[in-house]
Amino acid sequence: MKLTILGCYSATPRALTNTTSQVLEINNHMFLIDCGEGTQVQLRKHKIKFSRIKRIFISHLHGDHFFGLVGLVSTFRLLGRDTDLHIYGPKGIKEVVTLQMKLADSWTNYNLYFHELTSTESELIFEDDKVEVYTIPLEHRVYTNGYLFKEKEGERKLNIAAVEKANIDISYYRKLKQGFDVQNEKGELIKNNLVTKPANKPSSYAFCSDTVYREDIVPIIKNVDVLYHESTFLDKHAHLTQKTKHSTAKEAAIIAKKAGVGKLVLGHYSTRYDGLNQFKEEAEMVFDNVELAEDGKVFDFT
Amino acid sequence: MKLTILGCYSATPRALTNTTSQVLEINNHMFLIDCGEGTQVQLRKHKIKFSRIKRIFISHLHGDHFFGLVGLVSTFRLLGRDTDLHIYGPKGIKEVVTLQMKLADSWTNYNLYFHELTSTESELIFEDDKVEVYTIPLEHRVYTNGYLFKEKEGERKLNIAAVEKANIDISYYRKLKQGFDVQNEKGELIKNNLVTKPANKPSSYAFCSDTVYREDIVPIIKNVDVLYHESTFLDKHAHLTQKTKHSTAKEAAIIAKKAGVGKLVLGHYSTRYDGLNQFKEEAEMVFDNVELAEDGKVFDFT
Repeated sequence: MKLTILGCYSATPRALTNTTSQVLEINNHMFLIDCGEGTQVQLRKHKIKFSRIKRIFISHLHGDHFFGLVGLVSTFRLLGRDTDLHIYGPKGIKEVVTLQMKLADSWTNYNLYFHELTSTESELIFEDDKVEVYTIPLEHRVYTNGYLFKEKEGERKLNIAAVEKANIDISYYRKLKQGFDVQNEKGELIKNNLVTKPANKPSSYAFCSDTVYREDIVPIIKNVDVLYHESTFLDKHAHLTQKTKHSTAKEAAIIAKKAGVGKLVLGHYSTRYDGLNQFKEEAEMVFDNVELAEDGKVFDFT
Repeated sequence: MKLTILGCYSATPRALTNTTSQVLEINNHMFLIDCGEGTQVQLRKHKIKFSRIKRIFISHLHGDHFFGLVGLVSTFRLLGRDTDLHIYGPKGIKEVVTLQMKLADSWTNYNLYFHELTSTESELIFEDDKVEVYTIPLEHRVYTNGYLFKEKEGERKLNIAAVEKANIDISYYRKLKQGFDVQNEKGELIKNNLVTKPANKPSSYAFCSDTVYREDIVPIIKNVDVLYHESTFLDKHAHLTQKTKHSTAKEAAIIAKKAGVGKLVLGHYSTRYDGLNQFKEEAEMVFDNVELAEDGKVFDFT
């Protein structure tokens, strides 16, 4: 599981900082999460192949999280994309993208599917045989979802030496990987755990931005490997969180602790602060394993 | 008159090139012309004070000319702007900007005026005591206007030594600047041109992008000091101009010559070409005074 931060600042893009967008690689998927203005240029800078992006998840319709979407959709068209594209986001996202295509008289030559979200309960919105994606209802000034990406439990791994020694025919390997006991060539029942090893532990990633402190999300993100949680403010500006519906670094850490996550990644920093280390220090007072998102940073969580 | 090129490439923003946007400073006005994605960052990089931009002119609703507009409008709001903003552009521009404000539940705290254009004839769309702005109907795949910016004839300048020598009372200076003959303190009629000098020659700038070769614009832009004309292609790709409704460098030069302009600035280059000098060389076969727009270039035409 690999996470590339394309942008992690709040409010407006600047000469050296970008607004929210990140790419999550998990089990051969490449998911784009949020798409602030300039995301397509950030993707180019990081040499991320446009055609590998097949699903885009937008948390909410504030500009710093989605003003780059229509440009990306349009650039995909100009570059002759023919792969389907799925966009998940709040109701209204289809209207705003299609209105701009209509005004430009420029329709995509690839299939573009919108999955508009309205539920305030966590729901499964994408699933294949490897991965599931759920919404994480957040509380912000407009309707907002985080997203939970989970690998499914994989197949058990064969211990080839043990399998051969036990004289199991190759036609039973599939069943072994699925966890069943099987008979060997002599008709003896071979216990699965004697000839296989457990599957790799499935990875999971939760993206939570933007949101005020909200304990309701704890059961949804329980025990995830990595939690990205917004930390717009430091605790000294905690009085601003209720009005703006944002969180402090300390609050992000409390959520991480309550959910028992493996690692907390902070981001969505207000540009009022000089330097990011104070966010890390504040969060580490509460929770041990804290990392700072920074534009261009690549986290390899494998 | 000063022109700052924020972006001058066609199609999509890339790591090192930006789509169309430029700032024209003329007679204390600072006009923003087109607003491709990333324009707000380009403005910051060039240290152009946001509050000085009071009028934005959008040529057409293709993404490379306007996807940065909603972000700029939104950033103005976040920075607490209180100055009025006027946006000129094709019908539909109001709907697309206001839809995004509605979805974000973020309305501007400054006055935002849309001036939607539908005419296919050149029309006066802005005027004060110093400057006039006219549309230049262009021919592209969607409804498109170029813009003509013209200083008005200024007042004549006093030749102070001559005025004093002629014993003219200070209360007549205003009339002298306006070109009238006046009486001196002895009651003698003083011819205006004996005590004044001509006004500075008014400057003019025509922005023509995007468009196929179109001679109809020649009378509108006749004798302008500077013409920016798109040159998406070189002549060797002239077969592409009719379908895409773009021009070649050679065609831009023919328009410049027919209109007798002072200087031609080329831009809106297709990214298929390596290097820009071939555009200049091609245009110079037809017209002498050719300059290349480049991102970040500042032309001082005074």
